[in-house]
Amino acid sequence: MESGLIENVTLGSSYPLVVPISIIVAVLCLCIVIGHVVEESQWLNEFTVTVLIGFVIGTIILFWSKGKNSHILRFDEELFFVYLLPPIIFDAGFKVKKKQFFRNFSTIVLFGVFGCFLSSGIIAAGSWLLLPLVGLTGLKTREYFALGAIFSSTDTVSTLQVLKQDETPLLYSLVFGEGVVNDATSVVLLKAIQRPDISITDFKSVAPVIANFFYLFSMSTVLGVSVGLLTAYALKKINFAKDSTNNREIALIGLMSYLSYMLAELLNLSGILTVFLCGIIMSHYAYHNVSDGSKVTTKNSSSTMSNIAETFIFLYMGMDVLDIEKWNKSNSSFGTSLGVHVTIILLICLGRAAFVFPISALANYTNKSDERTRISLKSQIIIWWAGLMRGAVTIALAFSQFTYKGEAGDSVHATMVKDTLIIVLFTTVVLGSITKPLIKHLVPHHELNSESHGEQNSFIEDLNLPLLSPRVSTKTNILRAKNSLTMLIKKPIYTIHSFWRRFDDTYMRPVFGGPPPENSSRSE
Amino acid sequence: MESGLIENVTLGSSYPLVVPISIIVAVLCLCIVIGHVVEESQWLNEFTVTVLIGFVIGTIILFWSKGKNSHILRFDEELFFVYLLPPIIFDAGFKVKKKQFFRNFSTIVLFGVFGCFLSSGIIAAGSWLLLPLVGLTGLKTREYFALGAIFSSTDTVSTLQVLKQDETPLLYSLVFGEGVVNDATSVVLLKAIQRPDISITDFKSVAPVIANFFYLFSMSTVLGVSVGLLTAYALKKINFAKDSTNNREIALIGLMSYLSYMLAELLNLSGILTVFLCGIIMSHYAYHNVSDGSKVTTKNSSSTMSNIAETFIFLYMGMDVLDIEKWNKSNSSFGTSLGVHVTIILLICLGRAAFVFPISALANYTNKSDERTRISLKSQIIIWWAGLMRGAVTIALAFSQFTYKGEAGDSVHATMVKDTLIIVLFTTVVLGSITKPLIKHLVPHHELNSESHGEQNSFIEDLNLPLLSPRVSTKTNILRAKNSLTMLIKKPIYTIHSFWRRFDDTYMRPVFGGPPPENSSRSE
Repeated sequence: MESGLIENVTLGSSYPLVVPISIIVAVLCLCIVIGHVVEESQWLNEFTVTVLIGFVIGTIILFWSKGKNSHILRFDEELFFVYLLPPIIFDAGFKVKKKQFFRNFSTIVLFGVFGCFLSSGIIAAGSWLLLPLVGLTGLKTREYFALGAIFSSTDTVSTLQVLKQDETPLLYSLVFGEGVVNDATSVVLLKAIQRPDISITDFKSVAPVIANFFYLFSMSTVLGVSVGLLTAYALKKINFAKDSTNNREIALIGLMSYLSYMLAELLNLSGILTVFLCGIIMSHYAYHNVSDGSKVTTKNSSSTMSNIAETFIFLYMGMDVLDIEKWNKSNSSFGTSLGVHVTIILLICLGRAAFVFPISALANYTNKSDERTRISLKSQIIIWWAGLMRGAVTIALAFSQFTYKGEAGDSVHATMVKDTLIIVLFTTVVLGSITKPLIKHLVPHHELNSESHGEQNSFIEDLNLPLLSPRVSTKTNILRAKNSLTMLIKKPIYTIHSFWRRFDDTYMRPVFGGPPPENSSRSE
Repeated sequence: MESGLIENVTLGSSYPLVVPISIIVAVLCLCIVIGHVVEESQWLNEFTVTVLIGFVIGTIILFWSKGKNSHILRFDEELFFVYLLPPIIFDAGFKVKKKQFFRNFSTIVLFGVFGCFLSSGIIAAGSWLLLPLVGLTGLKTREYFALGAIFSSTDTVSTLQVLKQDETPLLYSLVFGEGVVNDATSVVLLKAIQRPDISITDFKSVAPVIANFFYLFSMSTVLGVSVGLLTAYALKKINFAKDSTNNREIALIGLMSYLSYMLAELLNLSGILTVFLCGIIMSHYAYHNVSDGSKVTTKNSSSTMSNIAETFIFLYMGMDVLDIEKWNKSNSSFGTSLGVHVTIILLICLGRAAFVFPISALANYTNKSDERTRISLKSQIIIWWAGLMRGAVTIALAFSQFTYKGEAGDSVHATMVKDTLIIVLFTTVVLGSITKPLIKHLVPHHELNSESHGEQNSFIEDLNLPLLSPRVSTKTNILRAKNSLTMLIKKPIYTIHSFWRRFDDTYMRPVFGGPPPENSSRSE
């Protein structure tokens, strides 16, 4: 941030950061107020408005500094990955409705991981075939791979703003879950592609990339879960709140989560995946070991920080378009640029369609006995649409691929950064504006309400049985095991989920914290 | 921060900040846990331990990097003033017990402003006379003035940790209040001294410095109060929480407070004073306009951030001692250094004694009718002792006076920075360790409890009457006014306070928010 923001600032304070921070904090306040005001609007959403405000502020700064002050406007990759992304992803993990998330786990992972792979492949192959036809040449094979990963990263926030978790739990859970898993997958995938020790010359290099991907994925998972469990254990053992000084609890949850992200980055793993899992573990165990005040505070301040970071990113995106240097460096013609935009947007639509509808059909087929997890065609269209928007992660990935310390190396790279930005803005502002009316049209309010019926207390009964209980006879235990086996064959996911819950109640919660198992109102 | 931390870091991540952040976050977690553990200890306090941990970590880093990696250890003035100080001072304002604070307002201001001036004068004159005698020469007149301001900035945190607000409300309020007012005064005073347009050649230059001081003081007050009232008004009008999305409230309180600090710095005023007053206004008005969840969250996250920032500062102080470059640049002999340390510490003791005891006597004389506000001799000793410790503000001021971008210009300046650091560490670690047993000795626990009797409901009765009420007859109003006038002569502060409360209830709270006046359990 600093390198970008410090330069060219000449107002009269002793600390050069004071000017940009003042401007940005003031504008953030404005965005928060306006975001609240437009909430009732039919077309606008908070983040579209924020991007537009960013654009207006950027224009003012540009004129005020007579066309020179472009550095305050530039999107900074390090600021994004070190300060802004961690709170957003942690909060996503922290507030994930775990029951819904894990019940639809297989579908979400298929969407988020397999779908991201397929979409990457289609976009990579498509742009390798089509981009030279519209006049853009000079990209290497590795860069086509990278393009696939960059443009497979979705941004579902504007859809999630419209959907209501209580009204359409299944749809919300799928869109939310896919969004988070997709974030992690696309970042890890690009990381795997960028590994210098893997030579990528043609499309046969896919195998080592995928191997690397799974290495990063599993190691990041282990790290995130470990840090989360360690924190939960420490909070349970130390029991800070006994004399009602609960600041240390809050500080420890926040700092340890941030540490998990930083450690992952330090070890060249995926910080995003790590901090997401850390967030899940924190809300599942650590959350229950702190005082009530700390619970409220942790939840609210996590979501406040996430909200501020998100607003800041959209603001920055709006301002970044006006970074003149990028425009000067790129020398592609208007026709070529337009061709690139149209090609990539079409590939994005195609790439998503290629997996959303088949995976939904597959999910419906395997769950055909269970009406509650059926994905209707309208829901499928919403899922498809939700993932068409591209956001801040896409921009950050493009910067990490095509620039070095914020500067594009050559004309092709400058063009790719500029085009990424335009595509992101187009999808955020134009497609984002259509989202609200589209969803209202596809899922009218009365239908929204009906979907949630019969959802509530259906899974709870047998889930609260402990896995193996010393309190009942061996015979009962064996009978239970038999029943479980039959269930496992009939309803694999459901049964694994129920196994996990029993394991959790019997072995994990007593050590790491959580409400006692006999309490049937389990935490979400 | 970045310029200091980035350099010389060579581990394998893509973002250079990742390594120092990981180290510092991990050590912060350690300090939080250990700080909890030593809470019961007789001698150690949280912050002494933190300084020692910082020293150990610094030594490890120094050995690990073979004596070269001193940059990660260096105290960064900008990091301190831009990121760490604002949350600490805001929290001080936010959690000030306003009734106590304003009831003892005159005494607190005498201690904090007049005392700081007197102490500055004594230290400045004393070091001008004595430092050349112990062998330190080369300081200009302005620099002697600056030394006075730098070493008049107290750090009362280790005393406040031992005192209990509920047991000794008067003593706590005086120590806390003086600490905050003193912070603001010393920073503003140094700012006034550093103004380049004022020529300081001899001790007659005091007048323009004082004039400048009052300009800065009043403008910062206006700014802080305005931003606070604006936020309170916006929160009351917009009423974010009506649909239970209360993140925006929390974000707005946090961002506006930070903005007040930044605007003050931008306008070359005192950010510390501004954000302190903004915190008071926020807790007095804005706090009452938000939802319950936001109240808990704002209070807890403010104090958590303040705590983390404080811990970080003490940690950094411990690490900063090992910044080798400073040691190399200073060429004063051991004897001179020791002479400087002893001289300044003696001047600090003398400077405090010169105002604590006289002002206490004055306060006792004017309030002789009121037993509750009598400052006993033991309390006076504690007040005197509480202000002997020097802390992070002193270091930051020394850096701002004697270095340019973290580098000392010449040998004398390097010596002053080094000596400041040693004096701060000595007072924090040695005097800080004596604080706990000293206070326990002077104010045994049973006595602590007795002081609070008869404090509770005595001031409330007449304070809740509105200033002018249309509901009672003119005669009653005139009678009330007459009574008030008699009171004003007898008990000036008490009466001004009561006038203010009526004005507040009648005009301010209806516009800016707060509990209704008939509710006698007024917010603190």
